[in-house]
Amino acid sequence: MSMFSRFTPLISRLPSTVPFVGPEAIERGRGAVVAARIGANESGFGPSPRALQALRDAATDIWKYADPENFDLKAALATHYHLKAENFAIGEGVDDLLGLVVRMVVEQDTPVVTSLGGYPTFNFHVTGFGGKLITTPYVDDHEDLDGLLACVMRENAPLVYLANPDNPMGSWHDADAVVAFAKALPPTCLLVLDEAYSETAPKSAISAIDALIDLPNVLRMRTFSKAYGLAGARIGYAIGAPANTATFDRIRNHFGMVRTSVAAACAALADQAYLQDVLEQIAGAKARIAQIAHENGLKPLPSATNFVAIDCGRDALYARAIVDGLMEHGVFIRMPGVAPLNRCIRVSAGVKADLDLLEKALPVVLQNIE
Amino acid sequence: MSMFSRFTPLISRLPSTVPFVGPEAIERGRGAVVAARIGANESGFGPSPRALQALRDAATDIWKYADPENFDLKAALATHYHLKAENFAIGEGVDDLLGLVVRMVVEQDTPVVTSLGGYPTFNFHVTGFGGKLITTPYVDDHEDLDGLLACVMRENAPLVYLANPDNPMGSWHDADAVVAFAKALPPTCLLVLDEAYSETAPKSAISAIDALIDLPNVLRMRTFSKAYGLAGARIGYAIGAPANTATFDRIRNHFGMVRTSVAAACAALADQAYLQDVLEQIAGAKARIAQIAHENGLKPLPSATNFVAIDCGRDALYARAIVDGLMEHGVFIRMPGVAPLNRCIRVSAGVKADLDLLEKALPVVLQNIE
Repeated sequence: MSMFSRFTPLISRLPSTVPFVGPEAIERGRGAVVAARIGANESGFGPSPRALQALRDAATDIWKYADPENFDLKAALATHYHLKAENFAIGEGVDDLLGLVVRMVVEQDTPVVTSLGGYPTFNFHVTGFGGKLITTPYVDDHEDLDGLLACVMRENAPLVYLANPDNPMGSWHDADAVVAFAKALPPTCLLVLDEAYSETAPKSAISAIDALIDLPNVLRMRTFSKAYGLAGARIGYAIGAPANTATFDRIRNHFGMVRTSVAAACAALADQAYLQDVLEQIAGAKARIAQIAHENGLKPLPSATNFVAIDCGRDALYARAIVDGLMEHGVFIRMPGVAPLNRCIRVSAGVKADLDLLEKALPVVLQNIE
Repeated sequence: MSMFSRFTPLISRLPSTVPFVGPEAIERGRGAVVAARIGANESGFGPSPRALQALRDAATDIWKYADPENFDLKAALATHYHLKAENFAIGEGVDDLLGLVVRMVVEQDTPVVTSLGGYPTFNFHVTGFGGKLITTPYVDDHEDLDGLLACVMRENAPLVYLANPDNPMGSWHDADAVVAFAKALPPTCLLVLDEAYSETAPKSAISAIDALIDLPNVLRMRTFSKAYGLAGARIGYAIGAPANTATFDRIRNHFGMVRTSVAAACAALADQAYLQDVLEQIAGAKARIAQIAHENGLKPLPSATNFVAIDCGRDALYARAIVDGLMEHGVFIRMPGVAPLNRCIRVSAGVKADLDLLEKALPVVLQNIE
């Protein structure tokens, strides 16, 4: 059946690609079952039991729309960060907020700067709004701050994306370097600083909120999807100058938040003791992933996130064979999409049973490839 | 603090208005408490107990992203409607889907046709993407099909919005008239047929799915927010030709759905017996709202929705005074925003306790105004 004939030229020529294929689709496609779900940087340690309880308690009120102003969550975040509620914008995960920011800045052929191999969903939004991606390669598996800045200057780009810590490599820059990068940017360029993995990072990697909050060209983005264990609840937030966070209100889906999810996020934020406990478990899981890699002759890269990128020492075909081979054993992992990052595989910090499966399957998979 | 200097011209000039102010904001603004929440066309009868159970059961998996392909929900909808999964697009409520459709069609100054006083959130999206709203007045409190068609032809508009049944008036057109309208449109105009209130409508008002499914310029939109009682879960869907529903995949937030909400929606859809029970309760509540209106000398309008628009017989100031007066008694209702519809108030079908409060407060409010 034919498509409607007057979608915009932009929409008509967009590809049908998606940023990520979900593990459920892989299961359906292969008739396989995911036994160890350690590919999407979710947290198998789960959220705080208090968050779960709050979610279940709020179910009774699921017939009501959530508060479109997100007053309670913003107030909780303001207290947590010693900021004002006006410093926050709430969205359906960082992915939603990234789409909104791109929409705020990008018109047809607007140059947007990011790293070659950086977060695909950001690129999806840039392409989706007609922007032109300008990329600079990673240097030693780190996003290249100098390279990003040079691209911004050369292209007079109004938008640049930086993930710190980085996904998919797990690498990071120190806070001082990030602050210096932000301040070196012309005020005509908005920095989206994706800090989805801020909780798992060393303290030295995450700049104080004060250090950037007064810059009118910086938005920091954080989430309850990673260390807080609430990926399926879809709660992300942007931190920035009130005039910028308020701009989201001009275009966002005001009644887009899910009532039970907001309740869970508030409770999760309030349970910092649980978060600390999970952070220890994530650190332990990462150490074990590194050990498993070493035992198999592979090289784990240092990680400030809740996953470990493992250098498999050969090309993308080899890494792909490992990813596919592990899936045959029910172990779902992912890998970077672009060279030279795609010599690596990416394994999320999972619970003991998941890593037991990885430990058992990996040598078998490697042997079968070689 | 200043705003970032290079938001697009469109974003920079957008107003900060929101489609609706939530009851929570009214509570905070007035220091009042909403005792009867019958203003947002939510369903105080709540969702199926099985949906609540499914939501609570799914909480355990909230650390996982939802399936980005929404396979299970699409399969359930396909079975329910005797269609294929490819005939559906899933979104975070109809509001989300409306935003995506507008984005698919609207560029700067694209004419978009709707009724003067129709659903504000659609207008919010049209304005937000730079479109030019072309409106035609209601006729006898009904959206004017001839007027909409005439606007489409005159402006060569690529997009027209029709809610059937209508919000905020509760009126409806028979299925035959809607099908004739859809077929009279040029193929160069996409009809968004918002059927959020389809479940509460008389059968004669809702055309068979077969009647429109083969038209490449029609998308029907439905939701779990109204009769299914899951407004806070944010699950809406579009029904249409596969080539059109697939177009959502090019731009939507693939990981935007909430895992617990999808589980609740699947369970709600499976419990049609509960839906039938709720529909009877809604019908009873609407009859009682009509009776309360009559007893107070006001005129309830016929309704195919889960609310009743009540003609208060005077101007917008009078209706506004009633809305504000009822809120003083803890009764949250709304009213249409545009003349002549705004001579009315709009009361959602609520549970007995809510309508008891309305019955008690309304005469006091009316007496205090006059």
